[in-house]
Parts: sequence; C-alpha cells; structure tokens
Amino acid sequence: MIPPGFTGGLLDRADNLRHDADGLAAAMGDWRARLLKLDNLQPEVTDDGRLGWTSLADAPDDAELLLLGLGEGRPHFAAFVPGTRVSNAPAMRSPALMAALHSLAPGEAATYAAARSLIDWHARHGFCANCGTATAIFRAGWGRKCPTCAAEHFPRVDPVVIMIAEHDGRALLGRGKGWPPGRYSALAGFLEPGESIEEAVAREIHEEAGVKVSGVRYVASQPWPFPSQLMMACVATAADDAITLDVTELEDAIWVARDEVRAILAGEKGAFIAPPPYAIAFTLLTEWAKG
Amino acid sequence: MIPPGFTGGLLDRADNLRHDADGLAAAMGDWRARLLKLDNLQPEVTDDGRLGWTSLADAPDDAELLLLGLGEGRPHFAAFVPGTRVSNAPAMRSPALMAALHSLAPGEAATYAAARSLIDWHARHGFCANCGTATAIFRAGWGRKCPTCAAEHFPRVDPVVIMIAEHDGRALLGRGKGWPPGRYSALAGFLEPGESIEEAVAREIHEEAGVKVSGVRYVASQPWPFPSQLMMACVATAADDAITLDVTELEDAIWVARDEVRAILAGEKGAFIAPPPYAIAFTLLTEWAKG
Repeated sequence: MIPPGFTGGLLDRADNLRHDADGLAAAMGDWRARLLKLDNLQPEVTDDGRLGWTSLADAPDDAELLLLGLGEGRPHFAAFVPGTRVSNAPAMRSPALMAALHSLAPGEAATYAAARSLIDWHARHGFCANCGTATAIFRAGWGRKCPTCAAEHFPRVDPVVIMIAEHDGRALLGRGKGWPPGRYSALAGFLEPGESIEEAVAREIHEEAGVKVSGVRYVASQPWPFPSQLMMACVATAADDAITLDVTELEDAIWVARDEVRAILAGEKGAFIAPPPYAIAFTLLTEWAKG
Repeated sequence: MIPPGFTGGLLDRADNLRHDADGLAAAMGDWRARLLKLDNLQPEVTDDGRLGWTSLADAPDDAELLLLGLGEGRPHFAAFVPGTRVSNAPAMRSPALMAALHSLAPGEAATYAAARSLIDWHARHGFCANCGTATAIFRAGWGRKCPTCAAEHFPRVDPVVIMIAEHDGRALLGRGKGWPPGRYSALAGFLEPGESIEEAVAREIHEEAGVKVSGVRYVASQPWPFPSQLMMACVATAADDAITLDVTELEDAIWVARDEVRAILAGEKGAFIAPPPYAIAFTLLTEWAKG
C-alpha cells in the first residue's frame, strides 16, 4: 500500500520529556533546538520538499513552546502565541497550502500535521470546559490544566469514517455541496459516542445515500489536520445499488466501475476528478481499484 | 468474529430528528416515548438482560432530554440534569456495574454505552472551551452551543489503540499498576494528533515495552463508555522479544504462547486472567488465538 498522506513522521515524540521538567528546560535551552517556521499556520517548504525551521530565538516574546519531538539529535518545537485565532474554513485551505501539501515530503507533512493540529487546539481551547476558567499549558504543550478545578484537558482527535460501498464491481462516490466541479469522493462522517468504526460506516452510508451495507473492512488510516481528525478508511458491501440521497448532506452520488476508477487514478478524464494524493480517499480508491 | 462488546445497538440514531425542531418536539410529546432508567449512571438490568425504561414523566423537572434514537416505533431518551457531577474513576466501575455489563444483552449494552458517554460529556463540558461562557444544549443533546462566541461543541470521542505484539507464536501482554492480581491485557494508549492508527500502535508498544514492531493489522473496534473512547484493536509483528519496561506505565510485561492464550480463554488457569467478554481485549485475544 502507498503510505497514506500525513503519515511517516520522522520525529520521536519523546513522550517522556513532556513529564520531565528538567529535561524539557534543557531542551528549550539547547542552542541546537529547532523552531518550525509557520506563517498563519502555513508551512514554509524548501525546494526539496522539507519544512523550514529556524532557531527558538525567532519565536515571539509571548510564545509558548510546544515540543514536537526529537530528530537528528535536536529538540524540535512549534510556537503558539496565546490569543491567536485560527480558522480551518475551506477558504483557509488556500491554493498555496494545497501546493505546499503536494510538495512536502511524506514525513515532513506528518510533522506539519501534528504541529498544525496542536496549535489549532490551543487556539480554540483556552478555557476549561468543566468550569469556564482560563487554562494554562502543561506537558510541553500536550495538555492544558485548569487552575480552578484542576481538570486536565488533552488535544482532541475526532475519529471520522471515510468509505466506499461496493456493489458488483462498482464503488459508491458522493459529491458534497459546493465542492469544486467534477469532484466526487468517498463518503465520510464523524463517528459518534457509542459506535464502533464498522457501525459508523454503515450508519453514514445509509444516512447519506440510503444504501444498506454489511461486511465493513478496514483499509487504512491517516491524520487530517484541518483541524484534527483521524480518518479511518473502509470498504463495505452494499446489498443493492439503489440510492436515496440525503440532500442536506450530498448533492449527488454515483456508482463508478473499477476500470474507470483505475483509469482516473492513472490520470485519464472520467466521471470524477481524482482526490489529491495526500487525502486518504486517494489511498482508499487506489487500494480498492487493485480489486 | 464474536461481535465486540458495546456494539450491535438496536436504536436508529435518527440524526435527522436532531436538526428538526418540530419533529423533536413531537418526539418529546409522544406519550409512548421511553426514558432510560439510570441511577448515578448505573443501568437497571432486567432478568432477561434488557435495560430498564420508564416514561418521560419520571425525568426530574430540571432535566434536559437527550435523544438516543428510535426503536420499536418509539423515541428513546436519556435525561441529563445540569450540574450533575459524574466520575469515571475505577472505583465508580463498581462490582454492581461490572455485573450489569456481564448480564446486559449486546445491543442493550450499546445503547447504555451511548447514553453514558453522552451524559458524561454534558456533565464535564458545560462551558465553552473557546471563551469560557456557559453553553446550552442543542441538536437534541448531541451538541452544546456558546451564546457568546457561537462556537459549537460536539461530544468528544477519544481514539485509543489497543494491541498485542506477536513474536514467534507468542503475544505480548502488559500489566498496569494497581490492576487486580493476575490481570494482564493488551497494551493500550491514546492516539495523538498527527498520528495514524498504525503509527500510534507502534509508538505505544515501543514506549511502554521497548519493543519495535511493524506490519500493524487492524482487527476490530468498539466504543468504551468510561467516559467515551473508541477502542481500536490491532496486532503487530515484533522484531524480537526483548522487553524494556517503562515502569511509569507498566508493572510487568510477558510473552504468552498461543496455546496458553487459548486455554485461558477457554476457562483454564494460566499466566493471566482472561479479560471480560465486553472488553475488546477479549475479542482481540480470541481472534489472535485462532492463529
């Protein structure tokens, strides 16, 4: 299998350092330490597909340092400036960002994903959900703690199922409202409390397209940092090919034959435009197209 | 495969009703509607393994109704009383609760899991993480909204990897601190932002036991409602069997041969006590033991 986008990170997350105040202070005082270069959450990408890094001295005075991990013998950090507002609206996923994601080497995209999700989480979780007090960063940026009720909060990861139903050699693809012309992709939705992956897959396909499935098979997973999803890609077997669209969710849904999916992934024009290689829909369709 | 614990829910979640104020009001005004009977988050279980239900009139005056879904032509609700404090400390998972989980029919345990996770989330997320204001319930209990900054908050599900490493026909099991005598189980840990399932599995096994793995295979998943985890069970191949314990995480780790795992799951005494059937460690070990 082609490794899914945003996987293959090269840093050791060094979980033990997060709990080691002296070790963390030493890492912050290490003159070899690297700081991820970000401009409004956009990465800087070098000509050879690497992330741009600078020294910790380039962080703003009021920044808090988030430990991304260790690599090449050096601690690697990202900076979060309290009060920063971030947006994950589609408009923020600009052509420049999309171009950067295309050009980033795989392991580099993984480091960017972790940093982006973490910064975004701090930006939108500055207050205690349990009592409303402003919280403070702890564990080297991998948590926030409430000074009033002592509740500990950890970066959120939202599990999302993304899947195709298959029937008689064809895959079910859907089209969300407002998507670019020609774009169809695997259906997707957030997993809810009290559900397994397999149950969420069946519920979402039924809700969105009115298709009943069984025999859900897990294929692959990837992080998706807009803001912090865990994408879990699956294939399920449909009982029949009748579609009943939920028009609040989808604009259209189509069945596409395996040969046509193969041709489109190989660059030919067809019923839909191939997903970008960093999206797990690309991995999922590629695996399914092998047959 | 034996269906994992807490799966097989019998209710239709009726996502569309959450967005339909009139439909929801009609459901709340339906005299046939059922309210889940809970005592301090403990379920009432009938002699034939069903959950206990009562009418909506039995909800406290200040309760907020959470729509669990539709079943047998009736809307099903749970009640959340604002200000309620809940605890998921091990002490709260009392022998009575464990006995209830053993006796609940599978689909019933799934309904209980969803209700418990949802109530717990409301109890610990009454304030806006973005600005600190007290939030209000919306979407029939499947969200909270901030009256000040308009941020929408949805029930949290934390993805957790749970896994065995295998080497030469033996499985790696670990023992957490303070666990009951004889208990060993699959290793487990929270997945972090910027990780795939496969990467989290490899990281956790390496962090906790010093074992390097590759070839991670997904086996099954289940919800775990203490408070709201998505457990994702995997098997990975270990490069060798040398163990380096992280003593802050584990008290001990052992390799157990497939024959011995089989015998223990069949009720014989051995190197460890079998996990309860509603835990996915049971499903995982049962699948692995098939060889």
